[in-house]
Amino acid sequence: MTNDTLASRAGLETLRLQPENLVLAEAVRAWLDSGDAGSLRSVFQDHHEADVAQVLAALRPQDTLEALRLLEIDVRATLFGYLPPKIQTAVARHMSRRELADIVSAMSHDERADLFKKLDEKERKTLLPALAQAEREDLRKLASYPEGTAGSVMTSDYAALTPDLEVSKALSELRIQAPDSETIYQVFVVDGERRLLGAVSLRDLLLARPGERVGDLMTTTVPRIAADQPREEAARLIARYDLMALPVTDDAGKLVGIVTHDDAMDVQAEEATEDFHRVGTVRNLDASVSEASIFMLYRARIAWLVLLVFGNVFSGLGIAYFEDTIAAHVVLVFFLPLLIGSGGNAGSQSATLMVRALATGDVRFSDWGFVIGREVLVAGLLGFTMALAVSPLGLLRGGVDVALVVAAAMVLIVLMGGLIGISLPFILARFGLDSATASGPLVTSIADAAGVVIYFSIATAVLPFAVTS
Amino acid sequence: MTNDTLASRAGLETLRLQPENLVLAEAVRAWLDSGDAGSLRSVFQDHHEADVAQVLAALRPQDTLEALRLLEIDVRATLFGYLPPKIQTAVARHMSRRELADIVSAMSHDERADLFKKLDEKERKTLLPALAQAEREDLRKLASYPEGTAGSVMTSDYAALTPDLEVSKALSELRIQAPDSETIYQVFVVDGERRLLGAVSLRDLLLARPGERVGDLMTTTVPRIAADQPREEAARLIARYDLMALPVTDDAGKLVGIVTHDDAMDVQAEEATEDFHRVGTVRNLDASVSEASIFMLYRARIAWLVLLVFGNVFSGLGIAYFEDTIAAHVVLVFFLPLLIGSGGNAGSQSATLMVRALATGDVRFSDWGFVIGREVLVAGLLGFTMALAVSPLGLLRGGVDVALVVAAAMVLIVLMGGLIGISLPFILARFGLDSATASGPLVTSIADAAGVVIYFSIATAVLPFAVTS
Repeated sequence: MTNDTLASRAGLETLRLQPENLVLAEAVRAWLDSGDAGSLRSVFQDHHEADVAQVLAALRPQDTLEALRLLEIDVRATLFGYLPPKIQTAVARHMSRRELADIVSAMSHDERADLFKKLDEKERKTLLPALAQAEREDLRKLASYPEGTAGSVMTSDYAALTPDLEVSKALSELRIQAPDSETIYQVFVVDGERRLLGAVSLRDLLLARPGERVGDLMTTTVPRIAADQPREEAARLIARYDLMALPVTDDAGKLVGIVTHDDAMDVQAEEATEDFHRVGTVRNLDASVSEASIFMLYRARIAWLVLLVFGNVFSGLGIAYFEDTIAAHVVLVFFLPLLIGSGGNAGSQSATLMVRALATGDVRFSDWGFVIGREVLVAGLLGFTMALAVSPLGLLRGGVDVALVVAAAMVLIVLMGGLIGISLPFILARFGLDSATASGPLVTSIADAAGVVIYFSIATAVLPFAVTS
Repeated sequence: MTNDTLASRAGLETLRLQPENLVLAEAVRAWLDSGDAGSLRSVFQDHHEADVAQVLAALRPQDTLEALRLLEIDVRATLFGYLPPKIQTAVARHMSRRELADIVSAMSHDERADLFKKLDEKERKTLLPALAQAEREDLRKLASYPEGTAGSVMTSDYAALTPDLEVSKALSELRIQAPDSETIYQVFVVDGERRLLGAVSLRDLLLARPGERVGDLMTTTVPRIAADQPREEAARLIARYDLMALPVTDDAGKLVGIVTHDDAMDVQAEEATEDFHRVGTVRNLDASVSEASIFMLYRARIAWLVLLVFGNVFSGLGIAYFEDTIAAHVVLVFFLPLLIGSGGNAGSQSATLMVRALATGDVRFSDWGFVIGREVLVAGLLGFTMALAVSPLGLLRGGVDVALVVAAAMVLIVLMGGLIGISLPFILARFGLDSATASGPLVTSIADAAGVVIYFSIATAVLPFAVTS
């Protein structure tokens, strides 16, 4: 066993595998040791490409490439498409120019555009001349859409027909287009200049009478999206209208690509994760949590942490301002974490609800009046319940006066926290800022400072002997 | 104009509409006023069923039903399927038994099972006898899977073939199954006892040579799920393997239904929303935020708020314990919110990352060693940076001693916060508890109390004149 084989085996050992893929890992291990390609090939056939790719991604790039070479070009391209981007580029660097061009030509158009974007300038320049001209232009065009747009997640290998085609001709045309199309189940109808006219499903084509034409069968109420719109809007349309594929058009209404349901699902999950992270004040983590380096995690977290420290200075200043009241009634400090914590908690609940509702489109900007009005009632009820819950504690540790101060402060602080939490997302959205960041710690920091002021103001006003200076 | 019409129009006025659907609302309004059904029908044809349903959902149930009656049964059933569940049951209550049975028969199997579950016992008993026996049994069976399982989101109207069929026969068989199948693009292959053998795509059937049989064309590496598995696992499989439909099997390996890609997308979005809410300590909100009543919101929020109040009592007790130190150095109170805030913030960042990574399967329970080890380094770096950031403030307000205490406390508190945030989701998962709830306020409460103890312990030890009692 060579050191190289050992390194690749070590990759396999640290791989986190679904139990059903242990067979796969075992076969790869045997192949690394003995070089028995035949049995590896047959094990690959018994597993889904996504699973094979997971196992191959754990090997040294050279070994991943050797394993890929055992397979036919179509399977190789599919498998390669399932590898994580970092592994793809690492493996691509070990390929000859011809080999890379072959695999790129066989990949689906959106996946190869994603790979192309990850290559450096020099690698792109090596790859492009090896491709056919049409592929070169398609690749350049797809890779040119900015990250985060519908254009950046679309693919150009869609099936299209013209409206004048008869059903039988349309079906033979689809048989020709099938090998190069991401889907032939949802077919788009275009005119001579590729302007989108409608859509027809393969089901309707199969069920149609022989003489009918595509134009008679197509539906014209086809949801569509412009290439420069956000990719999450594409995912939202696909979810709303239960689509298999959403057509993407350019400024002139011409069909330039489609976003497929599986890519929309990935977009939806990634956007949810980004929102989660933003709410937790973690920014721009350009990798999955399991793959992120220590420095990436540090960078994603430090800015907000430092910012929030200085946000908390305001709470400190509030406390310093009421130092006399505190000195006269040290018992008040006992209730401080509990009161300002409740304001922050109520606020972060409201912000959580609002951020997610705005992100999913459940609540819109124009709903702010209704939503804030309802929050006054909900937070008022919550505050009242909380005041009842802490009153006995107030009585126990500070007597009637302190209990009254704590109860009154609780109602006001929870109400204020709820209102801050519900408003901040709207206010940030109003100024075109990212509303997800409004949640959690930012709301908590503001609610904390406001809570300090509310609590000690009430205490200073109510407790007669509080003013000692 | 009658009062009833006014009520329905009022529903339309308060409807939040996509701009492109204003035409639709205008047409419905004209129909309510004039009763001109012909032009309404033609406007309906120009719009997607999901959009028409959105507008109809705003009317009084009687008017929604009147509008539905203008349409053919298939379109009516599709449209009805797009109505929100509450509106569906309200409209159903105005239908005759025959009318309801017709629409239920024409609906997709999963949607009608969802409707059935929403009906009360009496309504079910009225509906069932009006259905054909096969439909009755199918409905009872689908409705019997517990909420949250793969079985509860699957549909039984899938297309299935036997392996011995020749391609041409298979295609004619699919034409017969097409009108009653949710999808004919992904076809499942079963034996005489409906055990799942494999899958074949319509594309492969269309491209096959005439003599080939389904068994030759099918792939046997078909991801599948048991009906009692969680629905989010079904969504995860569909996303991972880019599936159009995932077959669902019973204990005996027999095919009982499929989960389709569009339903998987809805499940994925709903699960993300639930996780969001749980992280923000909002529990079991059984409606969208825009539809939830004040009482529903109150109930979803109050339990955690009260629980967290008592969590904060520990911070209060910590402070009370160190009252002497505080009395001797009131300046320490200024730094209190800032220090314990930082611990809570770092903790909620870690928890956010972990909860989401566990939910998406990016990190697994067995990874805890690696993840916690890495967090020690990241949180250590973060704490060190934060200590540098607050030191000038410490010098300014309290001199060298206080600056040292604050800096040392900051490093330890951020480290501790990060570790609590990263560990709690694992610990809860270990005990089979819901890890999403570990984030945000719960982590913050624990980190707060620990922060108070760390800070004042260091202060008491370092500041020589601190002990005054």
